[in-house]
Amino acid sequence: MTSGADHRTGPRRRGSELEDAILTAALDELTEVGLAELRMERVALRAQASKASLYRRWPSRLELAMAAVRHAFPDLDAAADTGSLRGDLLGLLRGVADQLAGPAGQALAAVLSESLLDPARAGRAGAPPGGTTLRALRLVADRAVSRGEIDPARVTDRRLEAGSALLRHHFITHGAPVPDEIVVAIVDEVALPLLTGDGLWSSRRPAPEEYARSSSPSRRHDEVSRHARCPHPSS
Amino acid sequence: MTSGADHRTGPRRRGSELEDAILTAALDELTEVGLAELRMERVALRAQASKASLYRRWPSRLELAMAAVRHAFPDLDAAADTGSLRGDLLGLLRGVADQLAGPAGQALAAVLSESLLDPARAGRAGAPPGGTTLRALRLVADRAVSRGEIDPARVTDRRLEAGSALLRHHFITHGAPVPDEIVVAIVDEVALPLLTGDGLWSSRRPAPEEYARSSSPSRRHDEVSRHARCPHPSS
Repeated sequence: MTSGADHRTGPRRRGSELEDAILTAALDELTEVGLAELRMERVALRAQASKASLYRRWPSRLELAMAAVRHAFPDLDAAADTGSLRGDLLGLLRGVADQLAGPAGQALAAVLSESLLDPARAGRAGAPPGGTTLRALRLVADRAVSRGEIDPARVTDRRLEAGSALLRHHFITHGAPVPDEIVVAIVDEVALPLLTGDGLWSSRRPAPEEYARSSSPSRRHDEVSRHARCPHPSS
Repeated sequence: MTSGADHRTGPRRRGSELEDAILTAALDELTEVGLAELRMERVALRAQASKASLYRRWPSRLELAMAAVRHAFPDLDAAADTGSLRGDLLGLLRGVADQLAGPAGQALAAVLSESLLDPARAGRAGAPPGGTTLRALRLVADRAVSRGEIDPARVTDRRLEAGSALLRHHFITHGAPVPDEIVVAIVDEVALPLLTGDGLWSSRRPAPEEYARSSSPSRRHDEVSRHARCPHPSS
């Protein structure tokens, strides 16, 4: 039995180290063979772990696959503090776009494809991928509140998720990679104004000089100049 | 040959009448057997049309399936004028939610599932379903502009699509039906404030009396009272 042997050949790992190894192996398998062909045994072999250590954590391959996708997507660590809400949102959604363009995106496509055809089964298999992104978005919003950039009364989970929903919608209907100008437009037209209430972040926005004049006094100068350097949204 | 016989047994139909019959038959087939088992011949038989009349319009079953889903979703006719932007958005997105809960939703799930696994093929098969909803949303926004409810400079396709992207995201991750309180919350927290810039449409909104006091003078009274009757968003 290969699954018995693995445990002895590799170093003894426990907890999050072992979990990381299994989820990374699952993502690699998922990308190579797809969800329909994903086998617990192959993942165990690849991670040099016992099959029991997989089944203990994830009773089925769908649960394992969803955990692998969640594991690959940006979490709290990815929500780097850039000093402004716009910078943080751009950083976070660019991170998601990067993941969508790689193996995690292929794995997510396989998982979403299965959950579309059998939503009840997907529901039983655990929270949908995207929960870690929401946690990161909440952190970004909390920082913006403490900077005084936004009113906490404006922040809701649904508003925080609007940007990533549009990004995922683009991914589902057009595939990857999602072009960077789309990510920028999603932030400037939707994600940011939903939280700031600032209508100036529109695709038909005024020229930078005009923008600086009409901008509220509380807006930070670095945001205005960073904004002026951004490519114009394509649509 | 059944496909030859059909043409003679039924009444001779042309143009949109024939197209309607074929797309309705395709949707029924898609719902019953799924995309993998969809056969042009079966659809032709069901629609009492010739196979040639199908292939002339849609070269493959994926193209036919996508056309059938587009056909089933709300179009311009569904964007009824309720007298307010909020009413129109609610009407439109409730229409989408109703479709998602029925055969069109199952058919959309099959089509999206396939396009997730092979985005290039889906791209070649035509515009993704959702285009008709966008056209209806544009009509709703145009009416709000002519009523003076919103500034045309705020309207972009991406903002218009944010609500339906969240709705579809909910459908993809949780299945159908999408509860009505989710539709209402999507309109009040995301779709409407993106267009009006009005931060009061938040999930932590004030009590109706307080709302009426703090509301801008230009807000119509009927909107305020309709709003007060709405269930509170669940999250």
